[in-house]
Amino acid sequence: MRYQIDLNSDVGESFGRYVLGQDGDVLRYVTSANIACGYHAGDHNVIRQTIRIAIQNGVAVGAHPGLPDLLGFGRRNMAVDPEDVYNMVIYQIGALAAFACVEGVKLQHVKPHGALYNMASQEERVAEAIATAVRAVDSELILFGLANSLLVKAGRQVGLRVVEEVFADRTYQPDGTLTPRTQPNALVTDPEEVVERVIRMVKEGKTTTVTGTDIDICADTVCIHGDDPQALVFVEQLRKRLTDADIHIRRVGAL
Amino acid sequence: MRYQIDLNSDVGESFGRYVLGQDGDVLRYVTSANIACGYHAGDHNVIRQTIRIAIQNGVAVGAHPGLPDLLGFGRRNMAVDPEDVYNMVIYQIGALAAFACVEGVKLQHVKPHGALYNMASQEERVAEAIATAVRAVDSELILFGLANSLLVKAGRQVGLRVVEEVFADRTYQPDGTLTPRTQPNALVTDPEEVVERVIRMVKEGKTTTVTGTDIDICADTVCIHGDDPQALVFVEQLRKRLTDADIHIRRVGAL
Amino acid sequence: MRYQIDLNSDVGESFGRYVLGQDGDVLRYVTSANIACGYHAGDHNVIRQTIRIAIQNGVAVGAHPGLPDLLGFGRRNMAVDPEDVYNMVIYQIGALAAFACVEGVKLQHVKPHGALYNMASQEERVAEAIATAVRAVDSELILFGLANSLLVKAGRQVGLRVVEEVFADRTYQPDGTLTPRTQPNALVTDPEEVVERVIRMVKEGKTTTVTGTDIDICADTVCIHGDDPQALVFVEQLRKRLTDADIHIRRVGAL
Amino acid sequence: MRYQIDLNSDVGESFGRYVLGQDGDVLRYVTSANIACGYHAGDHNVIRQTIRIAIQNGVAVGAHPGLPDLLGFGRRNMAVDPEDVYNMVIYQIGALAAFACVEGVKLQHVKPHGALYNMASQEERVAEAIATAVRAVDSELILFGLANSLLVKAGRQVGLRVVEEVFADRTYQPDGTLTPRTQPNALVTDPEEVVERVIRMVKEGKTTTVTGTDIDICADTVCIHGDDPQALVFVEQLRKRLTDADIHIRRVGAL
Repeated sequence: MRYQIDLNSDVGESFGRYVLGQDGDVLRYVTSANIACGYHAGDHNVIRQTIRIAIQNGVAVGAHPGLPDLLGFGRRNMAVDPEDVYNMVIYQIGALAAFACVEGVKLQHVKPHGALYNMASQEERVAEAIATAVRAVDSELILFGLANSLLVKAGRQVGLRVVEEVFADRTYQPDGTLTPRTQPNALVTDPEEVVERVIRMVKEGKTTTVTGTDIDICADTVCIHGDDPQALVFVEQLRKRLTDADIHIRRVGAL
Repeated sequence: MRYQIDLNSDVGESFGRYVLGQDGDVLRYVTSANIACGYHAGDHNVIRQTIRIAIQNGVAVGAHPGLPDLLGFGRRNMAVDPEDVYNMVIYQIGALAAFACVEGVKLQHVKPHGALYNMASQEERVAEAIATAVRAVDSELILFGLANSLLVKAGRQVGLRVVEEVFADRTYQPDGTLTPRTQPNALVTDPEEVVERVIRMVKEGKTTTVTGTDIDICADTVCIHGDDPQALVFVEQLRKRLTDADIHIRRVGAL
Repeated sequence: MRYQIDLNSDVGESFGRYVLGQDGDVLRYVTSANIACGYHAGDHNVIRQTIRIAIQNGVAVGAHPGLPDLLGFGRRNMAVDPEDVYNMVIYQIGALAAFACVEGVKLQHVKPHGALYNMASQEERVAEAIATAVRAVDSELILFGLANSLLVKAGRQVGLRVVEEVFADRTYQPDGTLTPRTQPNALVTDPEEVVERVIRMVKEGKTTTVTGTDIDICADTVCIHGDDPQALVFVEQLRKRLTDADIHIRRVGAL
Repeated sequence: MRYQIDLNSDVGESFGRYVLGQDGDVLRYVTSANIACGYHAGDHNVIRQTIRIAIQNGVAVGAHPGLPDLLGFGRRNMAVDPEDVYNMVIYQIGALAAFACVEGVKLQHVKPHGALYNMASQEERVAEAIATAVRAVDSELILFGLANSLLVKAGRQVGLRVVEEVFADRTYQPDGTLTPRTQPNALVTDPEEVVERVIRMVKEGKTTTVTGTDIDICADTVCIHGDDPQALVFVEQLRKRLTDADIHIRRVGAL
């Protein structure tokens, strides 16, 4: 069995006249696209354009639902009811799925965005609402969640195929959670170290935490940032190094 | 062959804490529900609740896409590009279709709302954009349009099944268009006359215009207003009179 | 010295075609109007109309800024930065002040809405952001805040005139905070008891908490709910009883 | 008497995480800033930051109200009522004025944005609604309008000080209106010719139309585009050439 990994990136985050990210470039390097659905970012025109670019690059299309907070880019926690979460996820998946259908593809996955992703990692009721909503729309959709999180657990409980996501440039704590960005040692800044950590996660299923101990971690997919030019240089490097390490880069869902 | 007609109403127009209409009542009397999709009215919570009430009453579920103008309730004409219209219709149908799917039904139809409906009646490019979008999402969807309008024509051209809608309390002009509300003779105010006009439209396929001449008109469905209590009294009456006149009241799409 | 009290109510909460509350009625009974500013409710047309009705009834006009969350009616806590709060309060006061100016009156006060009000009662940084914003726009504005809260404290610290608000139908805890609505004894349901509590707050500056002990409380203004017909019956009663008890009902700011 | 002209630019058009324009650069070259007010672009955080940069550069601050259409960037005509226009302009000026006040300056002017600007140039009722709203908020505000337009006329009729705006790179028709962008000869592409045309407008009060005839034109202010790097190179050139031609570049309102 060869080792394998998926590379995913958040795209389709432009809105009206506002352009964000460099989707045309980043979609040449990743295997799964998380497309904003119009709540925290994106609009109906951007969605269609982004799906088309994804298809042209052979990238799997996924929904990236967020909180209804364009001003805050979906990054601010909000006190939302689980039922509200359930409905907002269905709405956003549905909107995106229609474009996928029109363009001749099927949605591969769903990955919540920003504050919704974080809340789903830590709050059981939010995690369950999202997992239940995804399954209700289409039980073949794959749920992307933070490795070791409540979302991953909730997805499995409702019978979804789940993909665990790791962050290559973030450090982990002994309990498996990400070190908060507010802490000084939250980021791994050396590109070489970042690559090494990813390779170890994939091959050994382990990573070293901030305290020096090892934890088990399942690296099904790595999140790639696409908002600055250096990010793309790094992705190119990462792809090469992974391939050299005999790790196959491929989308998680079948074509 | 028995005569038949569909009764449709715009529902699901509440938003957040704002309640509009009396959906629970009106859905007891109509056969097709046009559900707002979150652009001009409605939100993800309202959509789900409204679909559920429609299903409980055996009412067919349709999408009611509108312009992105909550403040103006989608009633203000906007200079939108045809491609923008195409995409906004796909988005809204998709969002609604996901809820229909989750609740175990299939969308029966699409009827544009307010200014989008009016623009589609008179502007070829808008009509084509809507018709093409509906077909792209699902070629089995039925398109509701103003009788004798460009939307009806565009729907047929792209191969959709089309349903022509009449307004029971509005007068018509010799060219088949509705008399604008700004004119004094735009409305038929006598309930008895309203009923008689509908019956004649269904049975003879004709109606008398403001100039006294007759025009051909196809009354597949009648639009029912649900925002005031008197409206419901009228619908009850209308249903009885139509039935007495041997006109079968039934949804346009198969169950 | 005669005892006195202000009665305030949240108004101007309609939006576009959506009507909420019965402002025309409630403004006949209160002395201070908290007018929504377009973020959690209200729009530019509603604002002007509401200010006009307030003026006609001799009611003092105040700004009622909220979180940018129309869907949630500003009732959902959001993780907003203090600087963001500072700016959103300035924006909303400014918008409202322009209408007040156009209609020939001056804003009397500012009272934050919903989740912003609650957050300002308990989070020092939010309280300070609001108080600083109010003073920056106009140091003569009066700040309305929950009695005994951090907002009241922050307002005094920046040198604003502060008005403490009590809730007639809510119970208090020994630490001076409101009993959360989630608890069974949160509400006072007997109208007679409600009236007695208000009179005691005004005359003795004390109220009995849920544990039976007394706390000091400053009742400068009482919040009046205007969304159901019974509320208005109660207000009429309350006004009569307060007057009978020799408590003068008057706006807090000078005319 | 020395010749003089004002240079104005639309700024503060970023929104939340979306950055638009290069305000920090363009504000080094112009004398009047038209700041978006949160309807078509801008938000409360962007407004404050932009006013601060304008003040640092000694640039006069003005309100740039637009239609409530963030998705369309206020560039799509909408069927808005004059009273709605009146109120939306008051709201936006008020919001901006509060920030100006907080930062210690007074608003110099108001210039409508995009579709609102175009509608105000051609529709009398829109022009009057804007002019009346500006005067109602503050009769000392200066109204910026397209040279020879109905807005300029309406502003004078209500007694406002009016500033006529010309577009350096656009051609004019014999009736004084701009040649629509849809026509091939709408733009002046030679930078040298652009500069010459501005100088002639200022010194002679005339410009040559697309038919070769001359019309009278009053060039009080020139609109400077700030969205691409070349624009800034051009402005630098324009400033130098105007100064060499003995035309004083200064804000229209007194400091």
